[in-house]
Amino acid sequence: MSHSANHRAASHELWMSAQLIRVEQALSDWVAPNSPIHSSASEDLAPVLSQAMRYAVLDGGKRLRPLLVLAAAEAVGVNLGVGVGLGAIDEKSAQAALRAACSVELIHAYSLVHDDMPCMDNDILRRGKPTVHVKFGEAQALLAGDALQALAFELLTPAPEVVETAVQATLCRILALSAGCHGMAGGQAIDLASVGKLLTIDELRTMHRLKTGALLQASVLMGAACGKVSPVANLALQEYGAAIGLAFQVVDDVLDVTADTATLGKTAGKDAEQDKPTFVSLMGLDASKAYADKLLQQALTALEQTGLGNTHALESLAYMVVNRVT
Amino acid sequence: MSHSANHRAASHELWMSAQLIRVEQALSDWVAPNSPIHSSASEDLAPVLSQAMRYAVLDGGKRLRPLLVLAAAEAVGVNLGVGVGLGAIDEKSAQAALRAACSVELIHAYSLVHDDMPCMDNDILRRGKPTVHVKFGEAQALLAGDALQALAFELLTPAPEVVETAVQATLCRILALSAGCHGMAGGQAIDLASVGKLLTIDELRTMHRLKTGALLQASVLMGAACGKVSPVANLALQEYGAAIGLAFQVVDDVLDVTADTATLGKTAGKDAEQDKPTFVSLMGLDASKAYADKLLQQALTALEQTGLGNTHALESLAYMVVNRVT
Repeated sequence: MSHSANHRAASHELWMSAQLIRVEQALSDWVAPNSPIHSSASEDLAPVLSQAMRYAVLDGGKRLRPLLVLAAAEAVGVNLGVGVGLGAIDEKSAQAALRAACSVELIHAYSLVHDDMPCMDNDILRRGKPTVHVKFGEAQALLAGDALQALAFELLTPAPEVVETAVQATLCRILALSAGCHGMAGGQAIDLASVGKLLTIDELRTMHRLKTGALLQASVLMGAACGKVSPVANLALQEYGAAIGLAFQVVDDVLDVTADTATLGKTAGKDAEQDKPTFVSLMGLDASKAYADKLLQQALTALEQTGLGNTHALESLAYMVVNRVT
Repeated sequence: MSHSANHRAASHELWMSAQLIRVEQALSDWVAPNSPIHSSASEDLAPVLSQAMRYAVLDGGKRLRPLLVLAAAEAVGVNLGVGVGLGAIDEKSAQAALRAACSVELIHAYSLVHDDMPCMDNDILRRGKPTVHVKFGEAQALLAGDALQALAFELLTPAPEVVETAVQATLCRILALSAGCHGMAGGQAIDLASVGKLLTIDELRTMHRLKTGALLQASVLMGAACGKVSPVANLALQEYGAAIGLAFQVVDDVLDVTADTATLGKTAGKDAEQDKPTFVSLMGLDASKAYADKLLQQALTALEQTGLGNTHALESLAYMVVNRVT
């Protein structure tokens, strides 16, 4: 690595750690904070639900979606308030970005809880721990997922003094669209219907564009909505989001074949076992890896086309998505 | 009935029918309208999900929550646009009210879908039809519920030209709070934990205040948020919502004992069978009926305290909640 690349990698590491600390703290503050783990049980009317919600969200996950929100917010000029001497902090925009970051993670977390349930993927291991329904029972897992989705929208709609109401409305709009039947839930329904079927690459792409891509893309657009963004930049960010969204899934399929369960923290080899169509099963392993690299290049090109100055974090996250090993 | 009471009942019937037609039409337009039942399947990527969503929402239910939204909106001066010569229609407020009306119904519908699933109440009959998971399978039922919750927030956040963004944010805030762990989902979690336990009347009240009451109260407050409402009037509407919310559940418990399955359209006698604490099991049948009447009086008193001119529809709905036979 050159001196400059070294420097960039080190500064990205710093940015990442700082943002991750803020996100973890915010999630812990906002997700069922009256859980008996943290305070006296008398304050909490539904202690098991609170515990299940916290279990589903805290101490796990790469937090890719929150990082995308924050990186995009920074790219469009939101001062996240980390670091010194960066100028006056626009508190409302920074709050919007942090709340948006947590809200996409809550949607992601709820989808994993429901996805792991016996009537869906029936998985018992997630992030190296028993899944929520194994730990708390199916009924509480179902409710915890439901409550996490509601909480995502609750976080986005604080008092008007905290976040501009126009921004609140935009963030809710993007999140709701990406989570519902034209986004994540729709993609999961296609996924369900495709088990044991022969899909074309186009059909597989469509399924993943909805199932995983929609929320990853929404993360980028929600971050951008916290600041000022031109239509041109927004369109380019949309393309960036689409490219890394798809790349994420291609890499997922590759890792399902090449990594082991211990490294992944979830059951490896499930796709092949369940006879699910994947990029690897349709294109082969090498072509899938090459496709992921091509999508990375598309994402980087889109970033250049935004015309935005500070896209370093978004750039690093694109590399992270494609080069990850878990 | 006196001439004036007759006249009032007839005019309420007219108001109800007009609003119900609008709500049914709007739900049909907004809930997965590309379902293959309604158009060519090629437009719909997840046809089973769309069908399950429409099945869960359309052609059923009393639409009490939407009617509460619309009645409250009218009470605070929103012209719903039904009838002639009522003055200029504020399109944005009327749109907000209609969208709010549908959004609370979607939350209600999704909660029924999930509540009926085998891991929860395991019920096979709802509104006289097989429940969603019986008809479409558990996985699609789970996803349909999830997608309906997202759709509720999608409806509340159209383009700023359609509904003021400040109103959008307020509506999302009220709905998210009432649906999540401090509202409906929290109440359901307490309900789950209370099976086979001896609850006090206070604990039972708290459970139902969250499980059923929160969304009924939210319906009233969301309607009010579509127009101009003073803090005093809003507080009184909150009390009205709390009273009818609790009354609704007391009557539900009474009907579970006194009505039969065919009339209810759902399995009667389930509570006793599942050893669930109810108002009837704790207070007895007669005291429960008297309690419902007392709550009705509280609701009517609260309406007077709003100081609002046009609370006729809210008044009629309070009577309807307590005097219903299904």
